[in-house]
Amino acid sequence: MKHTLAVLVENESGVLARIASLFSRRGFNIHSLSVGQTEEDNLSRITLVVEGDERIVEQVMKQLNKLIPVYKVSNITGDPTVSRGLAFFKVSSDYKTRSEIIQMVDVFRGEVVDVSRDSIMIEITGDEEKIEALEELLKPFGIEEMVRTGKIAMARGEK
Amino acid sequence: MKHTLAVLVENESGVLARIASLFSRRGFNIHSLSVGQTEEDNLSRITLVVEGDERIVEQVMKQLNKLIPVYKVSNITGDPTVSRGLAFFKVSSDYKTRSEIIQMVDVFRGEVVDVSRDSIMIEITGDEEKIEALEELLKPFGIEEMVRTGKIAMARGEK
Repeated sequence: MKHTLAVLVENESGVLARIASLFSRRGFNIHSLSVGQTEEDNLSRITLVVEGDERIVEQVMKQLNKLIPVYKVSNITGDPTVSRGLAFFKVSSDYKTRSEIIQMVDVFRGEVVDVSRDSIMIEITGDEEKIEALEELLKPFGIEEMVRTGKIAMARGEK
Repeated sequence: MKHTLAVLVENESGVLARIASLFSRRGFNIHSLSVGQTEEDNLSRITLVVEGDERIVEQVMKQLNKLIPVYKVSNITGDPTVSRGLAFFKVSSDYKTRSEIIQMVDVFRGEVVDVSRDSIMIEITGDEEKIEALEELLKPFGIEEMVRTGKIAMARGEK
């Protein structure tokens, strides 16, 4: 099962290394990860998606809580959240296939961000399923490159 | 100076911990970081923004290149790229301020993704400057929460 964890940490050199090694020591592969600033200047939030047994995830969370620069760890897997990531695709495309691709991108409310003679670059925002659905549709044209952020999530309603 | 590095790695437990610790041992604070899948099933791409001396960044890149699961390290700081990140804001807002906030969000081509009686959640995609400009405008209303992905970047034109 995939777990989404939100970890609030102090901006300190070394905190990411310590968190990542807690997971790797238990053989967890980190599926996606994002680190970014928060509303507090001295705090960053790490959003992690890991796959593994619930009991072991709970153990790791307890260990995370013991790290000094860690303020708060939440498992937001089942919570009502809005969660999205961002992806860029570079797809092979010449004048013959360009309009077909642009049409697909419009349906997915993506955006064409660059065009060259034989490729097109697309930006899309959405949950994992949406990004993967567009990826499947673009595959037959030839995906030259794909970059994705880790997903971020925020609880709905009041804080 | 801020440097943007793209690191292509094999999906292996522990690789992120090793990369993060290479930076922390030299006292680098990682400004933002994103890990996500690529067009190759077994490869992930880590996009890092670090602040530091160019000479030291080059040394770290050499060390990264020596790690077995690291396929390729590029410093894409000055390259022609499209680069963006994603952010969520939760802003205090009741019926009196709601329409003013929505108007600002429209100008920034952001999206309202959730509304409650006394808050509003906003999604925005863009470069750092754009996200920070919107943050400044939203501050007077009261930012309750902000989450950001690390930025990702892709080279323009042919691969």
